[in-house]
Amino acid sequence: MLGRVRTAVAHSAGLPLRRPGPSLQLADDHAGRAVQSPRESRRRLPWSTGYAEVINAGKSQHNEDQACCEVVVVDRRCSPRCNPVPKECTEEAEGDLCFHYWGLFDGHAGSGAAVMASKLLHLHICDQLRDLVDILQDSSPPPLCLPGIARELPAEQNRAPLAQADAELPSDALPRFHLEKAVSHESLVIGAIENAFKRMDEQIERERMTRLVAGGCCALAVVYLLGKVYVANAGDSRAIIIRNGEIIPMSREFTPETERQRLQFLGFLRPELLGNEFTHLEFPRRIQHKELGKKMLYRDQNMNGWAYKRIEEDDLKFPLIYGEGKKARVMATIGVTRGLGDHDLKVYNSNIHIKPFLSCVPEVRVYDLTQYEHCPDDVLVLGTDGLWDVTNDREVADVVKEVLMDYEPNDPCRYTVAAYELVVRSRGVLKERGWRLPNDKLGSGDDISVFVIPLGGPGNYT
Amino acid sequence: MLGRVRTAVAHSAGLPLRRPGPSLQLADDHAGRAVQSPRESRRRLPWSTGYAEVINAGKSQHNEDQACCEVVVVDRRCSPRCNPVPKECTEEAEGDLCFHYWGLFDGHAGSGAAVMASKLLHLHICDQLRDLVDILQDSSPPPLCLPGIARELPAEQNRAPLAQADAELPSDALPRFHLEKAVSHESLVIGAIENAFKRMDEQIERERMTRLVAGGCCALAVVYLLGKVYVANAGDSRAIIIRNGEIIPMSREFTPETERQRLQFLGFLRPELLGNEFTHLEFPRRIQHKELGKKMLYRDQNMNGWAYKRIEEDDLKFPLIYGEGKKARVMATIGVTRGLGDHDLKVYNSNIHIKPFLSCVPEVRVYDLTQYEHCPDDVLVLGTDGLWDVTNDREVADVVKEVLMDYEPNDPCRYTVAAYELVVRSRGVLKERGWRLPNDKLGSGDDISVFVIPLGGPGNYT
Repeated sequence: MLGRVRTAVAHSAGLPLRRPGPSLQLADDHAGRAVQSPRESRRRLPWSTGYAEVINAGKSQHNEDQACCEVVVVDRRCSPRCNPVPKECTEEAEGDLCFHYWGLFDGHAGSGAAVMASKLLHLHICDQLRDLVDILQDSSPPPLCLPGIARELPAEQNRAPLAQADAELPSDALPRFHLEKAVSHESLVIGAIENAFKRMDEQIERERMTRLVAGGCCALAVVYLLGKVYVANAGDSRAIIIRNGEIIPMSREFTPETERQRLQFLGFLRPELLGNEFTHLEFPRRIQHKELGKKMLYRDQNMNGWAYKRIEEDDLKFPLIYGEGKKARVMATIGVTRGLGDHDLKVYNSNIHIKPFLSCVPEVRVYDLTQYEHCPDDVLVLGTDGLWDVTNDREVADVVKEVLMDYEPNDPCRYTVAAYELVVRSRGVLKERGWRLPNDKLGSGDDISVFVIPLGGPGNYT
Repeated sequence: MLGRVRTAVAHSAGLPLRRPGPSLQLADDHAGRAVQSPRESRRRLPWSTGYAEVINAGKSQHNEDQACCEVVVVDRRCSPRCNPVPKECTEEAEGDLCFHYWGLFDGHAGSGAAVMASKLLHLHICDQLRDLVDILQDSSPPPLCLPGIARELPAEQNRAPLAQADAELPSDALPRFHLEKAVSHESLVIGAIENAFKRMDEQIERERMTRLVAGGCCALAVVYLLGKVYVANAGDSRAIIIRNGEIIPMSREFTPETERQRLQFLGFLRPELLGNEFTHLEFPRRIQHKELGKKMLYRDQNMNGWAYKRIEEDDLKFPLIYGEGKKARVMATIGVTRGLGDHDLKVYNSNIHIKPFLSCVPEVRVYDLTQYEHCPDDVLVLGTDGLWDVTNDREVADVVKEVLMDYEPNDPCRYTVAAYELVVRSRGVLKERGWRLPNDKLGSGDDISVFVIPLGGPGNYT
């Protein structure tokens, strides 16, 4: 058992809308592109979270964005002896942990990985937290070492022998034979989320054949646990906090450009992964055979600047990283460098695997909700690249502010309207020359999914 | 010929003081630790730069910090046919480039690498810039491709055929068969500095036997060229700008802690470099054999957080990265992860080389001097870790402010006094219980070297 969901309120992009029938047809209408949003109160999400989505303008049959919003109960890991899952693990017990969770998954080359991750990632997070239930709720520093076989011991007895000895001595009188590094509770949660992403990716790898899981997905997951918000990002989705009008970035994007040096370093150390077709060097344009012997600008895995090098035969290979902005690609194939899935992705017409260059590990940023008294207009906005490609941070903050002003601070549907407006304004309006924004620029033809999460906390906005 | 120095004003830490005789004895006096500073006007450094240094409290025979301050003329690279160095290259010609340069080198395991780098790094930078003399002084974008054999062509003719064709067409009418990345002048200078560090490191490797170059060194180099200040750092020295009282960090430190993931990634991909003695995993303390089978906190090359893992035989090896803060070490040996030299450095009593884990590549940050009107109190401060270990950024800014207030804004010796004060206050005063600061904390027993560079620019403060 991976984990247990207390309130399965919403699951997968507007899942209640995704059932077969008229709603599904509406959601999959590439021509009309009606924005879907759970407006009615019976569909209200935890924390009065606002959510909206729209399908792409035709690039794929289904919406490849998926979303999930849950409240998850973490119970202690039981002794291995009581497998299969014993009764006492299936009911919420005193001292169990509970976390709020929001996930956005932007699929590519199919929606399979995104659908699977939207259904399971929070359960993997839950599973990784199961060893930590007592430790996280105990104010003393986490034990560095645990007994090998988990038993139902009180937290104090779960300490390593050395840590126990330490506790009996005043710290400055302590003869420290071993240097010890202090590890915070927060870093245990970060480690749990990081490993959950890895386990999720491994599960996709294992089950992709039997479950017919196609493609891969970017994953942006938010966990609220014990007063802190953990934002974990692997891909090109983005999270920002808008607090008193100020924008606080809560993620960064992982693309061939932002991860160039990591990928070049790998290509340099493991040239066999480049399959004799690619060079780990970057050049500002393709080199022609007739240019052999001339000098071309390049940069390697160590450089941020550019320099000239004499062109050799090997430099005629295609660069591992090529292109700029949204057109930048790894091995001329994929435009994001972190996410889940993609285990079968190969360079077109070749046997060169791309997965070794992709990472499933998120960057986790932490925001302490207790360090600031939030007003009802302070929100965390999550969006797939469909939103951010056409609407920048400041514009998003302005739309949110404009919408929230029109509603009473205690009206729980205001965040849903904000999400809806963000999607509508990024999609634009269908004109003769495609989907257009009010300024006549192209709107986003991509799938767009947005969460607007009020930061008042579960006490204020349940 | 690597390069040419127009005004060899100062070279190596207070080199004029380092000649044999009474001054040398003064500079090498570990007991008295007199602070050395070129106060007299005949020794004034370019840009009225302030400089001061003091030797360590006895940890090495000589001062292992070295410094250099120069004005360097870059002349065009000549055709290979006119080797050896022809006459026209030895005199400054019209259109030659000129850069100001400051370097700090903090040696370890001997002063050899630091001395050699202090004498040569600026000449390597000069050499790397020689291809760029015309390009950097031409306002049009740098050519992506150059002819293979450098000839004395006017800059316009130095363009690649494609770029030439482009220039004849209005840019929006241009059929772009090739995607082309724009490369800025600034990024060419960054690339030149990065490659100069590499060439310097290679030269140390080549000549370390014949020149008896011992140890390695951190390197912090500043280049002022065409209105911009380039700060290149490889190691744990630090540069900050103090502007109108505000602190702008111009470097970051490269240590086993800040570079943990890069080093772990290398150890993971190339386990043979760990010599069967080290594990690429990090643990918060050493594991004892009797703890096999228990669970211990760890993190791998992908993690920022911590998680528990079952202890296996392999985990009993010594961690590649171990220790905290100033005591953190790579392979239990070295506390900095970037710099020059260290080609012979091995793990004690073993045949395991450490150099593969060290990088000689600096991080280069750029500050545009023309974007802000600087007052005489705005300065760039460079210091080795001897300064920063005991005096933080804010304290440094306060000392600088206090000193500068006592001198007329146009008094060129004020920056020297500021550097002197920074060194004195970080060294402290010798008491019975060692060198002490006014607050009775331990002063720095390390070598300390400091530059205080006024940002008024060469026009104001020559």
